[in-house]
Amino acid sequence: MSKAEKLLRTRAPALDEILGVPLKTLDDGFVRVVDYMGSDESVVQAARVSYGEGTKKVSEDRGLIRYLLRHQHTTPFEMCELKLHVRVPMDCWRQWIRHRMSSVNEYSTRYSVAIDAAQKTAPDAWRMQSADNKQGSSGALVPAEGERLTRREAEVHKACRDAYAERLEAGVAREQARKDLPLSTYTEAYWKTDLHNLLRFLQLRMAPNAQQEIRGYATLIGHEIVRRWCPLTWEAFLDYRMGGVALSRLETEMVARIARGELAAAEALAQRAGWAKGKNRERAEFDEKLKTLGLKAPWS
Amino acid sequence: MSKAEKLLRTRAPALDEILGVPLKTLDDGFVRVVDYMGSDESVVQAARVSYGEGTKKVSEDRGLIRYLLRHQHTTPFEMCELKLHVRVPMDCWRQWIRHRMSSVNEYSTRYSVAIDAAQKTAPDAWRMQSADNKQGSSGALVPAEGERLTRREAEVHKACRDAYAERLEAGVAREQARKDLPLSTYTEAYWKTDLHNLLRFLQLRMAPNAQQEIRGYATLIGHEIVRRWCPLTWEAFLDYRMGGVALSRLETEMVARIARGELAAAEALAQRAGWAKGKNRERAEFDEKLKTLGLKAPWS
Amino acid sequence: MSKAEKLLRTRAPALDEILGVPLKTLDDGFVRVVDYMGSDESVVQAARVSYGEGTKKVSEDRGLIRYLLRHQHTTPFEMCELKLHVRVPMDCWRQWIRHRMSSVNEYSTRYSVAIDAAQKTAPDAWRMQSADNKQGSSGALVPAEGERLTRREAEVHKACRDAYAERLEAGVAREQARKDLPLSTYTEAYWKTDLHNLLRFLQLRMAPNAQQEIRGYATLIGHEIVRRWCPLTWEAFLDYRMGGVALSRLETEMVARIARGELAAAEALAQRAGWAKGKNRERAEFDEKLKTLGLKAPWS
Amino acid sequence: MSKAEKLLRTRAPALDEILGVPLKTLDDGFVRVVDYMGSDESVVQAARVSYGEGTKKVSEDRGLIRYLLRHQHTTPFEMCELKLHVRVPMDCWRQWIRHRMSSVNEYSTRYSVAIDAAQKTAPDAWRMQSADNKQGSSGALVPAEGERLTRREAEVHKACRDAYAERLEAGVAREQARKDLPLSTYTEAYWKTDLHNLLRFLQLRMAPNAQQEIRGYATLIGHEIVRRWCPLTWEAFLDYRMGGVALSRLETEMVARIARGELAAAEALAQRAGWAKGKNRERAEFDEKLKTLGLKAPWS
Repeated sequence: MSKAEKLLRTRAPALDEILGVPLKTLDDGFVRVVDYMGSDESVVQAARVSYGEGTKKVSEDRGLIRYLLRHQHTTPFEMCELKLHVRVPMDCWRQWIRHRMSSVNEYSTRYSVAIDAAQKTAPDAWRMQSADNKQGSSGALVPAEGERLTRREAEVHKACRDAYAERLEAGVAREQARKDLPLSTYTEAYWKTDLHNLLRFLQLRMAPNAQQEIRGYATLIGHEIVRRWCPLTWEAFLDYRMGGVALSRLETEMVARIARGELAAAEALAQRAGWAKGKNRERAEFDEKLKTLGLKAPWS
Repeated sequence: MSKAEKLLRTRAPALDEILGVPLKTLDDGFVRVVDYMGSDESVVQAARVSYGEGTKKVSEDRGLIRYLLRHQHTTPFEMCELKLHVRVPMDCWRQWIRHRMSSVNEYSTRYSVAIDAAQKTAPDAWRMQSADNKQGSSGALVPAEGERLTRREAEVHKACRDAYAERLEAGVAREQARKDLPLSTYTEAYWKTDLHNLLRFLQLRMAPNAQQEIRGYATLIGHEIVRRWCPLTWEAFLDYRMGGVALSRLETEMVARIARGELAAAEALAQRAGWAKGKNRERAEFDEKLKTLGLKAPWS
Repeated sequence: MSKAEKLLRTRAPALDEILGVPLKTLDDGFVRVVDYMGSDESVVQAARVSYGEGTKKVSEDRGLIRYLLRHQHTTPFEMCELKLHVRVPMDCWRQWIRHRMSSVNEYSTRYSVAIDAAQKTAPDAWRMQSADNKQGSSGALVPAEGERLTRREAEVHKACRDAYAERLEAGVAREQARKDLPLSTYTEAYWKTDLHNLLRFLQLRMAPNAQQEIRGYATLIGHEIVRRWCPLTWEAFLDYRMGGVALSRLETEMVARIARGELAAAEALAQRAGWAKGKNRERAEFDEKLKTLGLKAPWS
Repeated sequence: MSKAEKLLRTRAPALDEILGVPLKTLDDGFVRVVDYMGSDESVVQAARVSYGEGTKKVSEDRGLIRYLLRHQHTTPFEMCELKLHVRVPMDCWRQWIRHRMSSVNEYSTRYSVAIDAAQKTAPDAWRMQSADNKQGSSGALVPAEGERLTRREAEVHKACRDAYAERLEAGVAREQARKDLPLSTYTEAYWKTDLHNLLRFLQLRMAPNAQQEIRGYATLIGHEIVRRWCPLTWEAFLDYRMGGVALSRLETEMVARIARGELAAAEALAQRAGWAKGKNRERAEFDEKLKTLGLKAPWS
């Protein structure tokens, strides 16, 4: 590793342009970049220390980054850090904070009066319980119902906030007065994590089965921030982590049989695996994969 | 390290006796031990691998554990694991979950209807905002006020729960319907951590400036669980982490001056450190320490 | 969650049978289970807390565990802990210790005289540098060469050990005397990690491109220990993590084209992706995947 | 939190001046800053989000940083990141890598030929085994002995390197050929960690009982890098973490007795604590503390 040259900190000029600018989501939420360290270049540099090699042509960086991501060589991506300032409903923050490999400083409602804002739902934004996904939603409520629920929501917000104000006025400690604020109350925080852990966050929270609210934040972070910050990593991430299909050992073998037209053999494999004709989640998921791959299940 | 003998898993018989038993706190919360690994003995065993030595007399274990804790040799304490099932208001859980070095599986209100219980406050349990600690409380509200706030609390709980029920009935997805539940709503979780990180949790959450609610949980875990599980570690923890006084380099020098009666020299040190006669938090804290140590500040 | 019943700690009877028994590898290495917490049952229990549901039929546990692993719901696997006592050459330990999510207490060569054993290589066990993998090996050296190198290895071991002994005899501190011990010197440690992180370790270290020495340890831990401890998880791990094929978004689309016989369209996709006819690692890897799936590349 | 202003990344101009410059230690080691994020200002900013307050006068930053460090409010310090390029003997690296909360990319001796340098010891730099500290050293060997050991060291280095070269020449895979390199062989790595974890590293590795080699690196990082980067944090760190005295609950009570001249009561406490007249490590350490504090033990 050459060490003669004077160093400058790595920069991501496209990200510098939006430094500090709040990117809005929900009725009153935002995400903004406060600081960062590194760029695509730092990922490449860290990977190359393994080889004892110096900088190469930019054209080779793309190939290396794709290789690293494809083969889950994750440590070079840890060399980049992103620090955000976020404003988010506590309900959504409960999911966010589950990502442990991060650093957090949150607005304190012990120390200060709670932020006077709760996330509001537009009449046409009430989502129906999904019939086939116990933890999801699908479709929207009819307008009249939505109007009614939105009015009731405003009443509940007012009732909670009034009770909070009443307690504070009576001299109750902030740490206790806050206990009945609704989960929709906005909080703010600095949130810092490295690129590897950020990609993991995005993979889970941009996924179709993530809850819509956090998916909005994750999508902003991905498409507006990471894309500007580390464009090569972002492209590789979309290719390898967000699209695509993963086949298990058994599924791989079955695809091979089906592709070669050995349908009976494929069906025998399914039998042996306990994929009875009845309801079986593994088989149902495999059927979906086959469809995506342009192949037909032997049992359909 | 001898490796001939057949091993049995380490056991803590005193802890086995309360395995699965809910220890109650708050109006409807609990903590119960679901499983554990290791004991004081495991701490000692891990420490001794460094020396390439085998088991010793029990009487020496106490000395070794105290030595490890005193000198912050923390890794041997990581060899013990505790897994709890807890029921706790979300408000309190927000503080709990900040301890990242732990494993968590929480009851999902996306998947299931929220637990129908919110933490209630007795009329005599409303705490006043502390005058000198911006994030604390001290003293209780007068009874009449307390009665009123408790009645209002019940109304707010009912309003929130009714709105939740109404949404569910209208077919709104659980993940969205829950958004205005009060922070006082109970949740349940499995929470697992190692003894080192548990002690860190207890040190912060049993401290006098921790919020009363989580202090109740932490105190239960410490006095009822860790005491039974790892009695030698628990004793050392109380001695070295929960009591005692830590003096900075400057404070150490000043104590030495004061103890030797060199009051002018001590005061000169304070001057040089910028501890002006006026309001200074560092000096105020030092005054407290001197009092605890039975010494008199030269400026008092 | 029901909480009436008296609890017993979860047990894995098949693992209890080998508790403390050293499983040998290399010329003088071993792995033995010292303690553990949890079992397949604990994974299931943790997952079900999300649903607020109690225990189910054993037959459903398998399906749930497979689902969790397939969809990367990793937190329930963190509820199980394994503690090993290992004896391993420092060279190999250098790779092992890179897995940060673990707890470690290692034999100290500052405190004690270094273990008097270095890993020896049999004459037929010298591996040739791989031609196509810069960090791998393939094939064995010719016997005569192997004999020579093994003799030289013994001389080097003796030279290092003699120098070490000489220093100790001269009164040099152990912490300094050890500095020229060969990397092949054996060390011992307690190593503890949870099942999720253990599976990650096994996935990387049982892989064909892992170095043979650590692959030996990982294979022992997987096939002899995890298989006995959590048989359902082990089966699912082999199916979903160790076999199978992962296709990127682009590869998925190309497979679909090829499966439908739209070869020109597939080739156009490859062109657009920059997979020129020449040497391209991504295309070469894709060709391998196609072969596994029983499909033919349009360009072959 | 105001969010109107356009942001620039935080800078530490004094650190920028030595960016990329190798700071030398040992015969052939170095540390150099490759990149960083944040500064004292970022610590303050993160702490203030808790209060919902904006920037204050610089003069108040010092007080806040000292408060945070004194009271172990560690999360704001996680907001700063430092990335180093280090060259260090593997022996020393074995200690370094134990700090898990960091990101690492190391030079690979599977992929490339090992760095052709091993740490050499000058004739006057051989340290004697400490008599009273089983894991320490004290004093130097007599010159004649030192000369001899240094000559032998060169022979051992040559023997190991020759064997390595011989294996490579015979076609042995690099991953296997390296197995008998001495622990003193230099390696290089990128090492990145946050300021909180860096301070923990420095506290342990700058301590008098840390091994001299790593103490050299830690001292460079502290005095040459952190001092330039975050001068207020560095000053507070030296005051609160590197100097000073920590008294246990019992010790605090005994100091109070001694300070008030109640010597018999102090001695009774010691008796009750089991500090018999004989050899007792806790009492011996307390005697040292008393001496530092300018107080006399009642039993002396």
